[in-house]
Amino acid sequence: MEDSIFTKIIKGEIPCHKVYEDGKIFAFLDIYPVQPGHTLIITKKQTEFVWDLGATDYAALMDSAKKIALHLREVLGVPYVGEVVEGVDVPHAHIHLVPFTEPTEFRNIPDRTIEPDHQALAEMAKKIAF
Amino acid sequence: MEDSIFTKIIKGEIPCHKVYEDGKIFAFLDIYPVQPGHTLIITKKQTEFVWDLGATDYAALMDSAKKIALHLREVLGVPYVGEVVEGVDVPHAHIHLVPFTEPTEFRNIPDRTIEPDHQALAEMAKKIAF
Repeated sequence: MEDSIFTKIIKGEIPCHKVYEDGKIFAFLDIYPVQPGHTLIITKKQTEFVWDLGATDYAALMDSAKKIALHLREVLGVPYVGEVVEGVDVPHAHIHLVPFTEPTEFRNIPDRTIEPDHQALAEMAKKIAF
Repeated sequence: MEDSIFTKIIKGEIPCHKVYEDGKIFAFLDIYPVQPGHTLIITKKQTEFVWDLGATDYAALMDSAKKIALHLREVLGVPYVGEVVEGVDVPHAHIHLVPFTEPTEFRNIPDRTIEPDHQALAEMAKKIAF
C-alpha cells in the first residue's frame, strides 16, 4: 500500500503542527481549521476508513478522541468540542475535533484556496500540545 | 435531573423509529434526516455530553457506532457513513450517523420547518432495524 499523506506526516516526511502522540495514535492541527484548535486524530496504522479499523486500533482512536476533546475544552475554555468523521478526502482513518462556542462556528467551511496561517497554527500547537 | 427528550424516547413516552437497542444503547432515526437512514445513537444513561460519559458507557457508545455504521453501509449499499457529534441541541450524549455517497450530501442541512415524513421514516426503519 502506498503511504497516505497522513502516514508521511507520522514519518516526519511532511511537516505538521503536532498536538499529541502515543503508541497507536497521532494528532495534529488541520491547516484549514473550521475553528482555531481544529485537530485531526489519526491511527498510526494506515486503514482506509474508521469503521474498518480492528477493535484495538478503533478503541485507541476513540479513547484518544475523548482525551483530546476534554483537553481542548479545558485549555481553550470552550463549552463544546464537536467531532466529525467524513473519510472522503484522505484514505486513512481519521477524526476531526473542532472546539466551538456557537453551533454556527462548527458549521463554518474553511476557504482552502488561501495559504494556511502557519504562524497562528504554530502558536496554537504550542498552546494545546500535550 | 429532568428527563431529556431522548430519555422520554427510550421510555416510550415519545414515539420513534427505532433502529437498534442493547443494554446500554438506543438508536433511532433522526426525523429531520441529513440523508435517508440518518441515525441517532444515544446512551441509555442520561449524561449531558459524549465527552463526559464514564469509560464503560463511552466505549459502549463508540462500539455501537461502529457496529451500526457497518450495518448501514451494508444494508443501504453506500460507500460512506459519516459521524457527527455536536451536542448543543439536546443535553443527552448522542452521535449522528449519516449514510452518504457524495460529500455534498453529508453537508446537507435539513429544513426543520416542514413536517417530518413519518411514512418514509417508518419504511427506512423497517429496512435497517436490527
